[in-house]
Amino acid sequence: MGRLWSPLAAVTSRWQGRANAQIAVAISAASIVPDRPRVLVQIYKENYSHDLIHRSRAFALNFLRKDQLQLIRDFGFVSGGDRDKLDGVEYTEKVTGSPVLKDCLGYLDCRVVNGMDGGDMTCFLAEVLDGYVNPDQEPLTWREARRLIPPEWNEEWSVKIGANIAVSREQMGDIDYTPWIP
Amino acid sequence: MGRLWSPLAAVTSRWQGRANAQIAVAISAASIVPDRPRVLVQIYKENYSHDLIHRSRAFALNFLRKDQLQLIRDFGFVSGGDRDKLDGVEYTEKVTGSPVLKDCLGYLDCRVVNGMDGGDMTCFLAEVLDGYVNPDQEPLTWREARRLIPPEWNEEWSVKIGANIAVSREQMGDIDYTPWIP
Repeated sequence: MGRLWSPLAAVTSRWQGRANAQIAVAISAASIVPDRPRVLVQIYKENYSHDLIHRSRAFALNFLRKDQLQLIRDFGFVSGGDRDKLDGVEYTEKVTGSPVLKDCLGYLDCRVVNGMDGGDMTCFLAEVLDGYVNPDQEPLTWREARRLIPPEWNEEWSVKIGANIAVSREQMGDIDYTPWIP
Repeated sequence: MGRLWSPLAAVTSRWQGRANAQIAVAISAASIVPDRPRVLVQIYKENYSHDLIHRSRAFALNFLRKDQLQLIRDFGFVSGGDRDKLDGVEYTEKVTGSPVLKDCLGYLDCRVVNGMDGGDMTCFLAEVLDGYVNPDQEPLTWREARRLIPPEWNEEWSVKIGANIAVSREQMGDIDYTPWIP
């Protein structure tokens, strides 16, 4: 299953003065039409970003370079409910108003067009309205990142994911969410 | 965007005596709970498999080895409406009754738990009920496959995808599908 996760991205969002960044590894291309690019992104309901994305119906994906391991810790190990993770981070905005980080591998600025309840997460389908990705660099995957980060980060992450798994297991519940589209 | 497609899989399905196989490149892991693995799979509405998956609420993913290029052509270049693509192909079944191909890199036997209208495609969220993947082999990506297949297949594929893009463009229409979950 590990081969079915995507490259690492910082997902940024903003709603009424609140902004946040989190790490996501569940991103998929979702269009074969070259001039109508789309993505699917899974966001866990417990994440601070979930409410911002749900309300603003927008987000940006900021793909990480292999030397941006620190961002995994800064954005992925703490909650935006505890502190402003974008404080001191340089960013701009493009079409949707979602923060676009300076100095990443690339970005996709996205507007949500539909959503699906996955129990513990929402799967957002979004149009890519603006974007750029450096074609000469390869994105960073979580499998690579786990080999590159310090051992103490790996331990810290194991504790965090353990707690997340317990929450997800409960929220997944039985199968068949609302609504199934007939 | 090309880096956000998944490894290649033959998606197999069966409903009331009709069975089919198609190629998919839009597959994503969708669970952090180790004993509740899930996947997201995008299936185009025009595909013969779409109806089988929609009705049976099940499918299997059969990941391709790098030497199984012929299956891309056999399953991906023609429609199951025109001929029985599984005729002469060795397969078995596991939990859902979806055909599980013999001699692939691995398989995931999946039951659908929710779906989202994407305009030209449906995004299916599914529980993985059974599966095996050879850990010593790397799956085949479409980027790799395009370099490996004969030039005439690439041309044939370009014609096919051109027609698919025209259909998708029309079916995508304007944004905001039904239903958005508030």
